[in-house]
Amino acid sequence: MYKLYSLLLLQQIQFVEDKQEFSRFPTKAGRRSLSRSISQSSTDSYSSAASYTDSSDDETSPRDKTQLNSKGTNDFCVKNIKQAEFGRREIEIAEQDMSALISLRKRAQGEKPLAGAKIIGCTHITAQTAVLIETLEALGAQCRWTACNIYSTQNEVAAALSEIGVAVFAWKGESEDDFWWCINKCINMEGWQPNMILDDGGDLTHWVYKKYPNVFKKIRGIVEESVTGVHRLYQLSKAGKLCVPAMNVNDSVTKQKFDNLYCCRESILDGLKRTTDVMFGGKQVVVCGYGEVGKGCTAALKAMGSIVYVTEIDPICALQACMDGFRLVKLNEVIRQVDIIITCTGNKNVVTRDQLDRMKNGSIVCNMGHSNTEIDVASLRTPELTWERVRSQVDHVIWPDGKRVILLAEGRLLNLSCSTVPTFVLSITATTQALALIELYNAPEGRYKQDVYLLPKKMVTSDTFITSNFNY
Amino acid sequence: MYKLYSLLLLQQIQFVEDKQEFSRFPTKAGRRSLSRSISQSSTDSYSSAASYTDSSDDETSPRDKTQLNSKGTNDFCVKNIKQAEFGRREIEIAEQDMSALISLRKRAQGEKPLAGAKIIGCTHITAQTAVLIETLEALGAQCRWTACNIYSTQNEVAAALSEIGVAVFAWKGESEDDFWWCINKCINMEGWQPNMILDDGGDLTHWVYKKYPNVFKKIRGIVEESVTGVHRLYQLSKAGKLCVPAMNVNDSVTKQKFDNLYCCRESILDGLKRTTDVMFGGKQVVVCGYGEVGKGCTAALKAMGSIVYVTEIDPICALQACMDGFRLVKLNEVIRQVDIIITCTGNKNVVTRDQLDRMKNGSIVCNMGHSNTEIDVASLRTPELTWERVRSQVDHVIWPDGKRVILLAEGRLLNLSCSTVPTFVLSITATTQALALIELYNAPEGRYKQDVYLLPKKMVTSDTFITSNFNY
Amino acid sequence: MYKLYSLLLLQQIQFVEDKQEFSRFPTKAGRRSLSRSISQSSTDSYSSAASYTDSSDDETSPRDKTQLNSKGTNDFCVKNIKQAEFGRREIEIAEQDMSALISLRKRAQGEKPLAGAKIIGCTHITAQTAVLIETLEALGAQCRWTACNIYSTQNEVAAALSEIGVAVFAWKGESEDDFWWCINKCINMEGWQPNMILDDGGDLTHWVYKKYPNVFKKIRGIVEESVTGVHRLYQLSKAGKLCVPAMNVNDSVTKQKFDNLYCCRESILDGLKRTTDVMFGGKQVVVCGYGEVGKGCTAALKAMGSIVYVTEIDPICALQACMDGFRLVKLNEVIRQVDIIITCTGNKNVVTRDQLDRMKNGSIVCNMGHSNTEIDVASLRTPELTWERVRSQVDHVIWPDGKRVILLAEGRLLNLSCSTVPTFVLSITATTQALALIELYNAPEGRYKQDVYLLPKKMVTSDTFITSNFNY
Amino acid sequence: MYKLYSLLLLQQIQFVEDKQEFSRFPTKAGRRSLSRSISQSSTDSYSSAASYTDSSDDETSPRDKTQLNSKGTNDFCVKNIKQAEFGRREIEIAEQDMSALISLRKRAQGEKPLAGAKIIGCTHITAQTAVLIETLEALGAQCRWTACNIYSTQNEVAAALSEIGVAVFAWKGESEDDFWWCINKCINMEGWQPNMILDDGGDLTHWVYKKYPNVFKKIRGIVEESVTGVHRLYQLSKAGKLCVPAMNVNDSVTKQKFDNLYCCRESILDGLKRTTDVMFGGKQVVVCGYGEVGKGCTAALKAMGSIVYVTEIDPICALQACMDGFRLVKLNEVIRQVDIIITCTGNKNVVTRDQLDRMKNGSIVCNMGHSNTEIDVASLRTPELTWERVRSQVDHVIWPDGKRVILLAEGRLLNLSCSTVPTFVLSITATTQALALIELYNAPEGRYKQDVYLLPKKMVTSDTFITSNFNY
Repeated sequence: MYKLYSLLLLQQIQFVEDKQEFSRFPTKAGRRSLSRSISQSSTDSYSSAASYTDSSDDETSPRDKTQLNSKGTNDFCVKNIKQAEFGRREIEIAEQDMSALISLRKRAQGEKPLAGAKIIGCTHITAQTAVLIETLEALGAQCRWTACNIYSTQNEVAAALSEIGVAVFAWKGESEDDFWWCINKCINMEGWQPNMILDDGGDLTHWVYKKYPNVFKKIRGIVEESVTGVHRLYQLSKAGKLCVPAMNVNDSVTKQKFDNLYCCRESILDGLKRTTDVMFGGKQVVVCGYGEVGKGCTAALKAMGSIVYVTEIDPICALQACMDGFRLVKLNEVIRQVDIIITCTGNKNVVTRDQLDRMKNGSIVCNMGHSNTEIDVASLRTPELTWERVRSQVDHVIWPDGKRVILLAEGRLLNLSCSTVPTFVLSITATTQALALIELYNAPEGRYKQDVYLLPKKMVTSDTFITSNFNY
Repeated sequence: MYKLYSLLLLQQIQFVEDKQEFSRFPTKAGRRSLSRSISQSSTDSYSSAASYTDSSDDETSPRDKTQLNSKGTNDFCVKNIKQAEFGRREIEIAEQDMSALISLRKRAQGEKPLAGAKIIGCTHITAQTAVLIETLEALGAQCRWTACNIYSTQNEVAAALSEIGVAVFAWKGESEDDFWWCINKCINMEGWQPNMILDDGGDLTHWVYKKYPNVFKKIRGIVEESVTGVHRLYQLSKAGKLCVPAMNVNDSVTKQKFDNLYCCRESILDGLKRTTDVMFGGKQVVVCGYGEVGKGCTAALKAMGSIVYVTEIDPICALQACMDGFRLVKLNEVIRQVDIIITCTGNKNVVTRDQLDRMKNGSIVCNMGHSNTEIDVASLRTPELTWERVRSQVDHVIWPDGKRVILLAEGRLLNLSCSTVPTFVLSITATTQALALIELYNAPEGRYKQDVYLLPKKMVTSDTFITSNFNY
Repeated sequence: MYKLYSLLLLQQIQFVEDKQEFSRFPTKAGRRSLSRSISQSSTDSYSSAASYTDSSDDETSPRDKTQLNSKGTNDFCVKNIKQAEFGRREIEIAEQDMSALISLRKRAQGEKPLAGAKIIGCTHITAQTAVLIETLEALGAQCRWTACNIYSTQNEVAAALSEIGVAVFAWKGESEDDFWWCINKCINMEGWQPNMILDDGGDLTHWVYKKYPNVFKKIRGIVEESVTGVHRLYQLSKAGKLCVPAMNVNDSVTKQKFDNLYCCRESILDGLKRTTDVMFGGKQVVVCGYGEVGKGCTAALKAMGSIVYVTEIDPICALQACMDGFRLVKLNEVIRQVDIIITCTGNKNVVTRDQLDRMKNGSIVCNMGHSNTEIDVASLRTPELTWERVRSQVDHVIWPDGKRVILLAEGRLLNLSCSTVPTFVLSITATTQALALIELYNAPEGRYKQDVYLLPKKMVTSDTFITSNFNY
Repeated sequence: MYKLYSLLLLQQIQFVEDKQEFSRFPTKAGRRSLSRSISQSSTDSYSSAASYTDSSDDETSPRDKTQLNSKGTNDFCVKNIKQAEFGRREIEIAEQDMSALISLRKRAQGEKPLAGAKIIGCTHITAQTAVLIETLEALGAQCRWTACNIYSTQNEVAAALSEIGVAVFAWKGESEDDFWWCINKCINMEGWQPNMILDDGGDLTHWVYKKYPNVFKKIRGIVEESVTGVHRLYQLSKAGKLCVPAMNVNDSVTKQKFDNLYCCRESILDGLKRTTDVMFGGKQVVVCGYGEVGKGCTAALKAMGSIVYVTEIDPICALQACMDGFRLVKLNEVIRQVDIIITCTGNKNVVTRDQLDRMKNGSIVCNMGHSNTEIDVASLRTPELTWERVRSQVDHVIWPDGKRVILLAEGRLLNLSCSTVPTFVLSITATTQALALIELYNAPEGRYKQDVYLLPKKMVTSDTFITSNFNY
């Protein structure tokens, strides 16, 4: 019986409990969830892993400890180097489902397309990231790494990387001060000048701009993964301040299709099932929005035997919904009859208090769209309504007449809060990042200017990418 | 008929580690799984619920305690009557998804079709069962109840029932002696003679036969839920020893369709996702067997974008697979290329060691069919293979060359071990049981002889049944 | 460009024009359509085929002509023996898609399971039937054949069979007197006593009962294909008058699944498209009835992007519709909004005049169910409504306000009137008939009594049947 | 972009035999198919329509006749003005399925967005075009019209338009000289200067450029429908010779989705069924190419129970096929086992003679992609192979060993040759054309320069467009 949520989910819950703290890091919003496969087993490991360390250790800041890996080096700062063995196993498991990266490594036996590359990276530090980092090193690069999020580091994985000599500066539960200290350590090493940046969120890039502008003289390019970071880069570019070429990985075709259509097609079912055990067959469901996410959600639920309605204001998407066999409705038309409402519009207040008032007893409302604003959750926090947490991520909101509406993840993203991202999908993104680094690092003078680029189609569609990721 | 071995499931939920104890109750196999909605929240509740009782209490056998409910009566024996409030909430949550039973209650405001009925019951004691019991009482019956499984009782629910005056004798973690003591208490009450039996597994019926044969003089009928119990009844009937009419609920159309086709269509996805986070899209899957379970599994995976092959030896089913667009193969043809193998044939050794040897690295093998014999798991317990448990229900079996095959639930039923049965489905069965009791109790003399019957179609298809269970 | 209708369709149209005549043959109702593949090309052939015969010939009744085949024999009566060559080509084309029969022939090289069988047959005489007859002869039988329908004979095929020595008595456009004359010739040949009957509609069987009861002394069994004929056999059996075993081919699993579910899944699209060119995507459709035919129709339309509603009164079927994701409605709820109504209930007056009055302009109404009674077409033949035939099988019924409802095939079966039956499906049935003949002819004394039987599953599911019919 | 070669289609419908003539008009390739609803009924009409005219009339060129409509005017040149009544009925039937245009008319009761517009048009002249022309007039425009194809005019429709005063110059079976004479008459009328052009193929535009360049002084814009015409416009634009704004209707989102994805999803089934009556269930099909056309074909066949393989060289499309559950193959891998091959790649020689040699007996090969070059049909015209035309558009190619491969439409486009375009789809395009005319005619000075534009999304997605085209 699967019960425990992933470490990340716990982190996301913690995020929620502690919104003030979170709000200090506005730029970290919108990062993708980690795969449960890793985080779960790292959670499982705590009791046994604890035996590696004495308990007083837990209270000491990694910054105050001196640790050596088995090679006797200490150019890293992690929670506990002794957890390396456990982390190594996690990495090995992740490798199973990241065949494209493994394949890249093999190809690089002869040529080393990143020979001479000195990469500083700032991402979530998970088993999947570790597979990426180790691939980059196999291709000839030297890497220094730090976390893009104060909660998302898997300590065991950070330890495993440090053990083999990667310079990692990250642990779970960093303070803000720690966060910037780590970034600083990552960039600033005597006798070593980075020439590539891999960023997720733009904080590393920002810091280099602010503190080490000279570093850009050697940098050949930036690869950026997140919406937020890409947005910053475009602003820099517009302002004429971007001083190196940058690659926008976020908007690559493969990433978009996987993150939205294919991933959501699976995670909508997973998220609903894990939280509510609802039977999909015969249920009436309204999906608000028929973009890629909506297309994925409706396809999945239709296939499971749900009766699906769609609301949509963009006429082209409405037309597609129509031709795909979904009845277009206004939400108010069906609000009293549906069993499940799913929002994926990207807009605010798609489901209002007035509509929640009219939902039927036992109906479920959840969000697969943008951030946590689609359902007007705030409007439910009024005295006449009782909130009852029936299990993690699941609240019953109870009306005075006894009617219950089941609200999932308090209106935050269901797919991130109550489901996981398959390693396979993370592998797609990681492969794209690796290819972007290779492309920028090897591009002949003049191919890329000081602008933001999408990965050339020929790279995304290279044999390596496809052959290794698919049975083909 | 995949119900056998759900006791295993219960163990898995609660006592995965203690296999010896389980083996003492071989005959209790075949009980259905609890819905997670209950088990999870009851698990969640322990810490808080614990505050109701002092800790020494936990060690005392319920048989040695004297407890009174708030009405001052004591005709029950449960773990802790003080847990009633928590149990009540669980029951209320379950009622949300059991509208057919609630509807039956409403109809019975005027007529009391079970007025005068004295029912002894032996089932899992869960929130859903409580909704059934309270419905039977609302229809006019008096009930005495006991557990059909030593592990499956939700103590809080048992307390809640006792609190409102239902005579319940059951707690989680009974000994074998406790088990029969409870059954005895259930049957044997001075001045009260049962006239109906509701059984799940046949133990209560067996005990009445053995110890209180005279009771059958008053009994109007037996309603039996499980494969095992139904099998016993047919044996009695064949031997001319069945002395009252019996109703076979297990084989009713609704139950079969729900337990197999509709339920498996959802639980195959849920079971695979919870355990492995595998992405379904693009995966090659072979499903062995194209009965109702196979039809459900293939439909779901096809809809998620998997490439699905089918093996089947029955030609009519093979033909159906064919016309449904699945390529018929011999397992050996595809064994080297598939990512996932799912067995649902009902046969033994469908996947052999020889075939497991040829599966590719990272492939998943699991069972949705009959018991735990479809995959030859025993053949994997040889010295040259390493087993690594990567999380609950998930083992990596590692070949000498490093190849890993991911075995789920050690070859036991994935849907019971790694997924849950929706309350909605339990509601279908509970409604069927209630209707069977009403039919047998009210049948005119001579309609039913001393034989085993299926519920008449007119009952299964009554307005109550359909209207209330569906949006219709 | 599809323009020409099949011969059968033409015949069916002719039927319609001439209902009086048709009504003289009430028992011929409900026969299956011929495949267009044959009939179309035979239609095409008329001009060239005409060169074989002088035109005066066309007016002469075959009964008045003396014809010899190239072997010099004349034990047949067909339109024009000179058309044999063209008919032979038709038969060869049909063989392409009837691999099961061809495979049966090959197996019979050694054993001749019908050696000594003397079969009289009464069926549609088409290229597919010819493949069956020639297979029976290859298996050792001698055959005499006649038509079960006065319009359905393909003259060229009849000629081709006569040319190789099969005694065929049939031509297109027989009179009623011709019809019985042919049957008589088929049965009654000096020095030859039939021992098996293959019937489609029961007319041959009826005639033997009436005129040649002694023939039954030698008859080992009857194989009957049609609903009507099977119904008559059950009546005989009930009345104790059935004097030989009979095999009900109509209700064999394979035939039911193919004629209903699989065939209708395709023919609903084909029938609608050929008649109206309607685009399915986005159309709202209500399907009345969710039996096998309804399941086929809804599945197909859902897949094409239609929004499908279902009406159903049987609760088990209603439940299935529900779990398959179709919204259950009363027809009146949706009558004003739907674009297409399809009836497949088997009941009368499922769509009433009152409902037709409320349908929207341009909506389509058609019948896939039983006979022509589901839509109350008679109620539309009132003075205030104008009927306009816009093309074959398509009428616009025009209300005084200009509203048009498009009625297909005047409410008769769409799949038979406006689509065709694939040779593949006819092959399934023909194989079943052949197997039934083999089984009855070879059954040991006592296996079959004077009763109506279904083909034993082991025959239906024999290797021959499956292996040859499917890619498997 | 499968529109090229639809002239072929037209020929196929009407003049299959006369290939020489076709080759004289190479530039007219790329016109869309007519809907069968028209062509069929116009065909049907000939016998009755013939009664309007004496037969000698048929031989006289319309240019040599003087005809008056019932208002006494003669500014038109059509085959026979007396056919107007029949044509009117055709137009009325077409209106049923063109609700968006009808809705546009209603809206225009008050405002006349085309008041003052003087439009010269050159398109197929069909009932659907007539609905467009009459809508333009209802919106305030004056129209003069001519045919873009020498074969595609429906004479009755041309008559009906002339009868109500539209200046139409077109008849079916024009000579090349007639063609340009008609265009000339259309442009050149004393006292009347056109200010808008609606073109399909670019011939009208070309003629104005060549003969009446001064006309462009008044022209506010060109709306062009075809690939060919758009291509010419882009060339003019590149060369700096485009002297007015032009609107590219061909590449509008709605048109693309409808012409390719949605339309092909339906026409692949229709085309195969009408020609071969093949049963889809259980058939093995390989679809070459997974663009929009391939996506439509595979989705339809998968839904009908076919086992579908995909070949694809573009990796993004390959990935999508993969995630949609289709097995990616090389054609050679499956060539021996498939029942049907469908090409939709846009490339040449996708299916070679060598592969055709290896196809199995009875397999079908057809083309849904670009022009007639995907299947190497020429390679089949060798002495050792026998071609047998079994019906219109269907050839059996017979190998020396008796193997037959069924070739459809001689490798030309199946959807155009053997299926039809629903009026609904033509309505989408016609609405887009009307909106483009309105936009260009009313655009403020400076909004459009001398360039080629796509219709602004706000127009395509206007309420009128969507609301009226869909049930929404």
